[in-house]
Amino acid sequence: MTKVFDETEVKRLQEEVCEANLELAAKKLVLYTWGNVSGILREANLVVIKPSGVPYEKLTPSMMVIVDLEGNIVEGNYNPSSDTPSHLELYREFATIGGVVHTHSTYATAWAQAKRGIPCYGTTHSDYFYNEIPCTPELTPEEINGDYERNTGIVIVRTMRDRDYNAVPGILVANHGPFTWGKDADNAVHNSVVLEELARMAQLTISINQDITGIQKVLMDKHYLRKHGKNAYYGQNGNKE
Amino acid sequence: MTKVFDETEVKRLQEEVCEANLELAAKKLVLYTWGNVSGILREANLVVIKPSGVPYEKLTPSMMVIVDLEGNIVEGNYNPSSDTPSHLELYREFATIGGVVHTHSTYATAWAQAKRGIPCYGTTHSDYFYNEIPCTPELTPEEINGDYERNTGIVIVRTMRDRDYNAVPGILVANHGPFTWGKDADNAVHNSVVLEELARMAQLTISINQDITGIQKVLMDKHYLRKHGKNAYYGQNGNKE
Amino acid sequence: MTKVFDETEVKRLQEEVCEANLELAAKKLVLYTWGNVSGILREANLVVIKPSGVPYEKLTPSMMVIVDLEGNIVEGNYNPSSDTPSHLELYREFATIGGVVHTHSTYATAWAQAKRGIPCYGTTHSDYFYNEIPCTPELTPEEINGDYERNTGIVIVRTMRDRDYNAVPGILVANHGPFTWGKDADNAVHNSVVLEELARMAQLTISINQDITGIQKVLMDKHYLRKHGKNAYYGQNGNKE
Amino acid sequence: MTKVFDETEVKRLQEEVCEANLELAAKKLVLYTWGNVSGILREANLVVIKPSGVPYEKLTPSMMVIVDLEGNIVEGNYNPSSDTPSHLELYREFATIGGVVHTHSTYATAWAQAKRGIPCYGTTHSDYFYNEIPCTPELTPEEINGDYERNTGIVIVRTMRDRDYNAVPGILVANHGPFTWGKDADNAVHNSVVLEELARMAQLTISINQDITGIQKVLMDKHYLRKHGKNAYYGQNGNKE
Repeated sequence: MTKVFDETEVKRLQEEVCEANLELAAKKLVLYTWGNVSGILREANLVVIKPSGVPYEKLTPSMMVIVDLEGNIVEGNYNPSSDTPSHLELYREFATIGGVVHTHSTYATAWAQAKRGIPCYGTTHSDYFYNEIPCTPELTPEEINGDYERNTGIVIVRTMRDRDYNAVPGILVANHGPFTWGKDADNAVHNSVVLEELARMAQLTISINQDITGIQKVLMDKHYLRKHGKNAYYGQNGNKE
Repeated sequence: MTKVFDETEVKRLQEEVCEANLELAAKKLVLYTWGNVSGILREANLVVIKPSGVPYEKLTPSMMVIVDLEGNIVEGNYNPSSDTPSHLELYREFATIGGVVHTHSTYATAWAQAKRGIPCYGTTHSDYFYNEIPCTPELTPEEINGDYERNTGIVIVRTMRDRDYNAVPGILVANHGPFTWGKDADNAVHNSVVLEELARMAQLTISINQDITGIQKVLMDKHYLRKHGKNAYYGQNGNKE
Repeated sequence: MTKVFDETEVKRLQEEVCEANLELAAKKLVLYTWGNVSGILREANLVVIKPSGVPYEKLTPSMMVIVDLEGNIVEGNYNPSSDTPSHLELYREFATIGGVVHTHSTYATAWAQAKRGIPCYGTTHSDYFYNEIPCTPELTPEEINGDYERNTGIVIVRTMRDRDYNAVPGILVANHGPFTWGKDADNAVHNSVVLEELARMAQLTISINQDITGIQKVLMDKHYLRKHGKNAYYGQNGNKE
Repeated sequence: MTKVFDETEVKRLQEEVCEANLELAAKKLVLYTWGNVSGILREANLVVIKPSGVPYEKLTPSMMVIVDLEGNIVEGNYNPSSDTPSHLELYREFATIGGVVHTHSTYATAWAQAKRGIPCYGTTHSDYFYNEIPCTPELTPEEINGDYERNTGIVIVRTMRDRDYNAVPGILVANHGPFTWGKDADNAVHNSVVLEELARMAQLTISINQDITGIQKVLMDKHYLRKHGKNAYYGQNGNKE
């Protein structure tokens, strides 16, 4: 921790992370104290995260815990989320992400419990996630009994090895639940909400047609590239505003 | 574009289309910026449509983009919905419609992803849609890589060729989601809400009885004609009001 | 119509029926103008029913239409619900009922579309409905093309012939949806809400265990009689209040 | 009843139990008068419970009925819940519990009707319930026709015999619905809400993968012990607050 620590920037991040946590509750992705959102200040290598076990309705910005990338508490009167080491692993390995979310949202968790990745069945999916949303393999007994939360992060990174984490901003951890990430905390929550809806649509899709195969690759590419990359033409980028 | 352009009429249509878009959000058929509603002023061949990628809570009537039937922006500071060419194709081919809606509503999208039309299983369905709500075939790679959004409109029109678009005011685009239409923007939204409920009922119906076949034709006719056509006797038409 | 017509009583019934219709909307059993509730003034043989095709948010007590048991409008500026003849048939045949409800509620309609009665799978069911909630056979083409709505009532009565309509206060009409009844309009709505929840639980039950058979008869009897009949001991009847 | 009766303590418990009952309604686990919550004052062997058949919106603290462990009414103008003898049996046998809840919540009841325990499919489950949430065997005809509600409590206790009731704070009664318990009334409601969500996730899990087997034992242990027991490290226990 030799970097300079900008108090104003950290306060702004605490507000942003607090609001993102509240948005998780507003979108009904969490019950009680379940789930957590974090954000990172890359220039200072500081991560701001929800305190462990505190109900959403009691969260205030100053309760958000500030930790460094090794998990040491830099400031805060609360224990950080017990899932903090998973978040930190993702920040260390996914260089351009600014926010991480973990939930036990109902449909995404059901796919994680079924130990199945979510196939890309339509354009709603490929508007946000390029191809399958993978499911990690199970952790080994050694990984579980060792540094469990960090190993959860490691198995995520390992599973993403051959994928572009910008194009697949989320994953299912087997028998556990979803993690998503994004350019900031708010965007990571957005991806969590979308992932939950995709999980719901996919569960319904296979209930209607058990023999369904995924979307054509050419349509998947079309929709993904309509919203992402240099030739994107969705939205108001570069418009007359 | 030699037709006269009546500003008052266009403003009224912008208000109507804005309100119809908000109704889509109120009925929970859309998440974030998903979905779009348009309306047409037939006497001027002007279409009013939601701007692309703007969240529903920020929409105001003056943000609704005005385009001609070729898709040229006539007035507006925003890009129109990226799905505009699909809407325009429907207005060109379905001469009497006044509004078009596209959503990714959960159950209708699941049927579209399952690549199955929704069979007519009951009178709730035949009160609004005469017979099956069809699902288009997949677009070809050439159609996808070409003028994609316009080709989406073309495959809808092609699939509807042997059907009466007034009696079947909606369709599923394979791997994508539903489009509906109606006599105006509000009516098209109404049909979207009904289609989503029919998709939900149908998914449940086949989960309860996998061998179910559709409704008797005579009952389908009875309910459709009870509400539509010159012998309709549902509602308050011609009553003492 | 030789009976005396008590204006105060009829007004009170219009208020009760209006409120019961609004309760149907509040409990989310209906979309738009779907569904209808009626009540009867037995001493005058007058039935009060929702006007046809009017949205719930616009209903007021004075809009409730007053008809006699033959369906003649006694008072009212609106057409009565197109399902009025079905209601009247039930009032004529089920001597002690005071209210009737028809909806297209999602889960009950799915069972009706699947053409299956809802088996009694648990005590929630037998607290309200003794044994299966039956599904009618399909109407014949002659019944459909004839006096359709009255014939719907007739097939309900025929299906209930060997059952006690007080112990089974509701039914599914094949390919259509549920009808319920009760001692008054409010109670009939209560039974509609319960029927919908039973339909939902039953759909889930068979999805969890496809080989499930119903509840033991002795347990069904126990729960039904715990709440109904002269030895009932549920609730506050005869307590110290 | 030779124990001293502390009026202030009983009043406080009536308030707590009333609030816990209202929370059950707020969390949408109950319809109309269904379900009930109780709490116990161990030092006086007094149980406070919801009155039978009273709608939630009318409940006030002073309506909560006070009974002794034999079910005699000590104070109150209402009949206690008809399920009171089931609650009392649990208080007598599970020495450290302070609250009991019974509901007919949709998904948990569906599993009870399917006569299946809920397998532990993931960490959401093992965060709260160690291993399967069991389903009781059916009661015998003698048990049903005898002291039915007490026998319901007895079959719960019998089914829990080889389990730790602190580690499995809830159960499904076959063909009936869930019972949960906890250190107080509020905690028992919390466990009811969680059980319902676990039942929903499990129903979805088996619909996605019918061949799924449960979670690894080592992961189940890890999550359970992360939140429970002397080495727990979830939450704010022992933190700097």
